[in-house]
Amino acid sequence: MKKFAVILSGSGVYDGSEIHEATLALLAIHNNESEYQCFAPDINQHHVINHISGEVMNESRNVLVESARIARGNIKALSELSVKDFDGIILPGGFGAAKNLSTYAFDGADFEVLEELKNILIEAQEAEIPIGGMCIAPVILAKTFNEATVTIGNDEKTADDIEKMGSSHLKTSHGEVIADKKHMIFTTPCYMLDSSLVDIYEGANNLIKSMIENMNQ
Amino acid sequence: MKKFAVILSGSGVYDGSEIHEATLALLAIHNNESEYQCFAPDINQHHVINHISGEVMNESRNVLVESARIARGNIKALSELSVKDFDGIILPGGFGAAKNLSTYAFDGADFEVLEELKNILIEAQEAEIPIGGMCIAPVILAKTFNEATVTIGNDEKTADDIEKMGSSHLKTSHGEVIADKKHMIFTTPCYMLDSSLVDIYEGANNLIKSMIENMNQ
Repeated sequence: MKKFAVILSGSGVYDGSEIHEATLALLAIHNNESEYQCFAPDINQHHVINHISGEVMNESRNVLVESARIARGNIKALSELSVKDFDGIILPGGFGAAKNLSTYAFDGADFEVLEELKNILIEAQEAEIPIGGMCIAPVILAKTFNEATVTIGNDEKTADDIEKMGSSHLKTSHGEVIADKKHMIFTTPCYMLDSSLVDIYEGANNLIKSMIENMNQ
Repeated sequence: MKKFAVILSGSGVYDGSEIHEATLALLAIHNNESEYQCFAPDINQHHVINHISGEVMNESRNVLVESARIARGNIKALSELSVKDFDGIILPGGFGAAKNLSTYAFDGADFEVLEELKNILIEAQEAEIPIGGMCIAPVILAKTFNEATVTIGNDEKTADDIEKMGSSHLKTSHGEVIADKKHMIFTTPCYMLDSSLVDIYEGANNLIKSMIENMNQ
């Protein structure tokens, strides 16, 4: 039974983890006879968005505490993630990946990845542990590893940004996975395309399967 | 293509809709070639729970606004739900069903169902539109219809309460659905049992299939 660390960034597409992608990644892990532990950084969200109006709310919420909603309370601070305890690491999408785990939503190609996350990703790659990115999260992998080959679907602006970071972008459609086996990075577009939940689950399931196939036995 | 109204009660198991159940109900609807519209009441949550500590937070959140996180912003106020526009109505579980849509969590068998919801459920039953309840939500159906036969799994206290309401309870295991065709009420236990996400999806999928089979053509 393989064990995945799932790194969340809040709870809700506009200021945290995209809930469908995160939930369907967890389902795909169970569906492939594997288990998971959720993690999130113990930091404040960049902001809180009203998911009906799109407006910023005059509130402050903590990424770890809100992520716990997706994890049904079973979550640990990212600082407790010990890479050697896991066979794979997953980053679901949602603006939280681009606002809380990194500054991509604000700074474009010249952005910063949360130091704590960057260190985990580098350690995972050195240990040849596969890292999976869904939706917009592949920009974090493209930035951290520079020479990665990833997909975010077919959005030209984001694809151009990925090339500026020194990584390569490949176009994909619903459910497809780009497996960069050299760098052990696996990505799928999810809601970066206009998708149904069936597409998201197909992508999550293909991502987990591809990662498991490439794990050290 | 059948159309489901999905009635949410917030976003998070301890003070709103259980996120996995809600998301997997939406996936099951798409998986059965049907579509959905999410709704939630435009009221304040009973309270806000820190999903790590279980403690009440000194905050106020709106059920409709928080439910929009699960619906990716595509949600309407429950007051806008016109029963005749739908072929089926789904109530996912989570404490929101027992704290925001009703007072079951506080009052036990002698509780109240939100008036706005009760009227919708009665109208749906009169129109022979199937109503589905997941997890703890069947208590709302047991209370509203008195003579219903439902399941919440095998929790004795809740099953006793359901009998006190004048309805009947049948024990079930993972993924099973109780179809009360006389009252057009369909229920499945989900996280009222110690379940994996695969169990939840199986239950959601079986629930949607059973409802579709019993819809007027």
